[in-house]
Amino acid sequence: MSSPTVLTIAGSDSGGGAGIQADTKTIQVHGCFATNVVTALTAQNTVGVQGVHEVPSDFVKQQMKSVLGDLPPKAIKTGMLASSNVIRAIIEELQATYSEEDMPPMIIDPVMISTSNHTLLPSDAIGELCFGLLPLARLITPNIQETELLLRCLRAGKNVPHHSDVVVGDLVKEQESGTGGRIQSIGQMVDAGKEIAHILQAKDLTVLVKGGHLPMEKTSLKKALHALASDTHMTVTWKGESSGADEEQEGFIEVLHAYRDQLQNESKKDEEKYVVDVLIEASGSRVNLFVAPAIISASTHGTGCTLSAAIASNLALGKHSKLDRDVRCEAIPYLDQSSSFLRAVVQAVSEGIDYTQYAIVTAEAKGEGHGPLNHGCIVARRALMLASSSDPHPFVSHLLRSTSQEWQSYVKHPFVQQLGKGTLDPEAFRHYIIQDWHYLRNYARAHSLGAYKSTSFTEIQAFSEIALHIAKESEMHVQFCTSFGVSLEDLQQATESPSNSAYSQYILDIGAQGDVTELLVAVFSCLLGYGEVGLYLKRKLEDGTLEQRMMVDPPSSARLARLTKIWSDCVKLEAAFWQMGLDRS
Amino acid sequence: MSSPTVLTIAGSDSGGGAGIQADTKTIQVHGCFATNVVTALTAQNTVGVQGVHEVPSDFVKQQMKSVLGDLPPKAIKTGMLASSNVIRAIIEELQATYSEEDMPPMIIDPVMISTSNHTLLPSDAIGELCFGLLPLARLITPNIQETELLLRCLRAGKNVPHHSDVVVGDLVKEQESGTGGRIQSIGQMVDAGKEIAHILQAKDLTVLVKGGHLPMEKTSLKKALHALASDTHMTVTWKGESSGADEEQEGFIEVLHAYRDQLQNESKKDEEKYVVDVLIEASGSRVNLFVAPAIISASTHGTGCTLSAAIASNLALGKHSKLDRDVRCEAIPYLDQSSSFLRAVVQAVSEGIDYTQYAIVTAEAKGEGHGPLNHGCIVARRALMLASSSDPHPFVSHLLRSTSQEWQSYVKHPFVQQLGKGTLDPEAFRHYIIQDWHYLRNYARAHSLGAYKSTSFTEIQAFSEIALHIAKESEMHVQFCTSFGVSLEDLQQATESPSNSAYSQYILDIGAQGDVTELLVAVFSCLLGYGEVGLYLKRKLEDGTLEQRMMVDPPSSARLARLTKIWSDCVKLEAAFWQMGLDRS
Repeated sequence: MSSPTVLTIAGSDSGGGAGIQADTKTIQVHGCFATNVVTALTAQNTVGVQGVHEVPSDFVKQQMKSVLGDLPPKAIKTGMLASSNVIRAIIEELQATYSEEDMPPMIIDPVMISTSNHTLLPSDAIGELCFGLLPLARLITPNIQETELLLRCLRAGKNVPHHSDVVVGDLVKEQESGTGGRIQSIGQMVDAGKEIAHILQAKDLTVLVKGGHLPMEKTSLKKALHALASDTHMTVTWKGESSGADEEQEGFIEVLHAYRDQLQNESKKDEEKYVVDVLIEASGSRVNLFVAPAIISASTHGTGCTLSAAIASNLALGKHSKLDRDVRCEAIPYLDQSSSFLRAVVQAVSEGIDYTQYAIVTAEAKGEGHGPLNHGCIVARRALMLASSSDPHPFVSHLLRSTSQEWQSYVKHPFVQQLGKGTLDPEAFRHYIIQDWHYLRNYARAHSLGAYKSTSFTEIQAFSEIALHIAKESEMHVQFCTSFGVSLEDLQQATESPSNSAYSQYILDIGAQGDVTELLVAVFSCLLGYGEVGLYLKRKLEDGTLEQRMMVDPPSSARLARLTKIWSDCVKLEAAFWQMGLDRS
Repeated sequence: MSSPTVLTIAGSDSGGGAGIQADTKTIQVHGCFATNVVTALTAQNTVGVQGVHEVPSDFVKQQMKSVLGDLPPKAIKTGMLASSNVIRAIIEELQATYSEEDMPPMIIDPVMISTSNHTLLPSDAIGELCFGLLPLARLITPNIQETELLLRCLRAGKNVPHHSDVVVGDLVKEQESGTGGRIQSIGQMVDAGKEIAHILQAKDLTVLVKGGHLPMEKTSLKKALHALASDTHMTVTWKGESSGADEEQEGFIEVLHAYRDQLQNESKKDEEKYVVDVLIEASGSRVNLFVAPAIISASTHGTGCTLSAAIASNLALGKHSKLDRDVRCEAIPYLDQSSSFLRAVVQAVSEGIDYTQYAIVTAEAKGEGHGPLNHGCIVARRALMLASSSDPHPFVSHLLRSTSQEWQSYVKHPFVQQLGKGTLDPEAFRHYIIQDWHYLRNYARAHSLGAYKSTSFTEIQAFSEIALHIAKESEMHVQFCTSFGVSLEDLQQATESPSNSAYSQYILDIGAQGDVTELLVAVFSCLLGYGEVGLYLKRKLEDGTLEQRMMVDPPSSARLARLTKIWSDCVKLEAAFWQMGLDRS
């Protein structure tokens, strides 16, 4: 259950939607531990960036020193880097700390302009980013504009003796004026990504060109995919309901579309657009396309930060499980096996895209402009806490605490008190032990029912042993009754009292109606309360059967409430059972 | 499902364990949305603070402006405030934005020194904090040292014409040299809290004096509680397993202690210490004591930040539910009813203490010094995503996607294809429709079993209607068979084939063994696949019965895996049913 450390090096967004805030929230909900090196502060909200406070590069360096040594990250991501001095400081600290081999994977989101169109990286820093930082990256995640600019800069760097000779300012102006080629198709995205990877020539580098700004209609998408299909190393992953883009494709599930079609009218379906993210693997040999329906939403502030932080978290977690599994595990040996690292990147990117999309579509509107994503979408509040040193039995203690009054009325029932003081009417006790013999029979049956409903030999054995023990115990019970002048015949001829029936039939009904867990809760109140029989059974079940079940299959609030209700009913029926003795009813 | 905004005004901890990082993580996992006004940056790790970068007060002001207007908070908390200029800037912005009535509740954690003993607030700022900011607070959360210093300062302020005449530096020196009274008992904590509330005379102010630095043994604790018991307005809340402190008390649950005692040996139990947090309500009229076992842990970096952020989140959420309930709701009308706000504070503090304790005891060791808390302890990864516009039926689409191959083999089975092309051997079809008649009888029984296991009339009705529909439909089936030369007698005399029995008995067994949800999944594959009967039933169940169940009772990974297994088994058995037709077996 370890939560690997993920370092984010980025600016602070006071509005909480982007920057280290988006990163930290994303990393947290992925089950990782976020450390932060702050490169700049922004006074920002959903409408725009109202101010930037630069952090001295020396202090960036100091933050790097503080976290890299004491809290070594399993993955690093960078966002807004503010200035060339800051970038240099970061490079220096990384190189001072790591050799090329032992550096954790670095994901660079080359943030240059905010969603609200605010310049976040001065042009003199772009060269430092391209020629200094990018060569250290394992994954670069530019959007289309950023791809164009990075490419201009990298191309220019090829033609000059020294990188410092590249006049980035002119390239930015060219980019702004629209001079030169623009990326306007999936094919061009692929080519651009390949060229970046080629120029950088870094081992294991991957480039994710994000196509969010290039939505396309179904027909254009299909054409583009057909044109690219000649590339045998291309893999297409369809996200969300986007598999509707091609009914003939493998794995198309008609029922899902019948479902969706109910929700959309035909005209809207035709208008539907798709976005494609292109992941180029090292040396451009493999291309992964992620196709998703374009989302129309105002909640997109911090999308890029969120995606790269999610990818970094997935890489740090190492095990690249589906979104619907609990992810916590050791880091993968990403440095030993390039191919396994590349597979890991594909999986991490794919899951990162799922997460980001889900966080956008489930976001509530906030602020006047582009609102934040719903970073918490993949987690839910635990209904039941995990076991800890201060609460080693959270489920049983939850049951007892939520019914403390009923529990007191049961364990301190006047019948028990009178029994303890020796003032109990012998007739009351006689009535009780006769009824108890009948109760035990049904109680044994309840355990046999549990065995019948079990899914494993272990469970069948546990239930059967208890049923067997009660059956054997019944002989002792008869002997005990005989000593009180009650014969086996008396026992057999006695009528089951209503309180007795109510209780044992309740347990059997829960057993018939629900699953094994519900039945276990129903038999548990008797186990916890009883004496002689109880002590044996308690030991059997205290092995943690119930806590174990709750750990393996954590209950939702609704299920916990249902189990608590069953428990509470049983505790009350236990008290009524004592009362039946007193009343001889 | 709204997530209220909580603003934290504090320093950044590069190490991620305290400051805005602890706040943001805490606020996030509580289901709230965190905005951040950064007052200072620290280069920090678990060992200590290696550097501080102050943020100009003007820029603090600018951040305040950016967030207060566009993203109005439901609660505000302050942590490290860095300098008197920063504090003045905060006060000015708060006063410019809010009238006294409409200010959201402000929780002030008067951070002055870090866990690692680093001074985080210069002495000239302490006066600004005491006389400027504290009067705006709804809750102040000092530890014992901070309580002593605040009290010194507030007392000195009473005796001078102007607050600026208070020489705080001298008071800090007095405090450091140990001159004057020290808080060494619960009684003194109560008195100090009352005095702070009394001097500030702020309406609805509450003071939480945290006793973490004053652990006491069982006997001293008992004595202290007895001494205080004369105060009739005192309420004691026992946290975790601490109710063991007094066996005679109401609500003591013996079984829980029997449990715990198994885990601890006697000697350790005697050494056990307790800490008490004292919450003084407005004007000192009521006192709440929270008693918890002292935790021995190195994972305490950021404890104060975490507690105050949790309290702020709880207040913002408005509904002050137990930790074991899903909390998301509208804000309480805290400004209309003082008494309801005070109750809310007590509840928010109590839950905040639970959360913080739980985050400490479940933390894994990180770093060389005081490690961070496990902020994610109260959330778990969702096994199944919630419905969204891009995936309106997450459960069914999960089932279909995780069995896409089996699903294809079923819906595109050669039997179906031959039927479509008109090449199917009539004998194969005859065999199929005979078996199908038998299958339908068991399929109807499965729905009757569902009705038997249901907990509500709605469910009983839904299942019964389907059982009834199938029973009626059987007559049409007989008519249809007659047209193929198969009489009712033929149907009755036919033997159920093994594939048929295997499938229908599987469904009935799942129904007997599991709960209603499992049964629904088992009958669902047939519903989704079938034609005429299916269309009617599909409509009945598509009302979202299954998705609804998943929403109300979100499955754990284990339960989702079990349901997916049942689904997968059924889809395969459906395919085997077609195969049986082809094989006439």
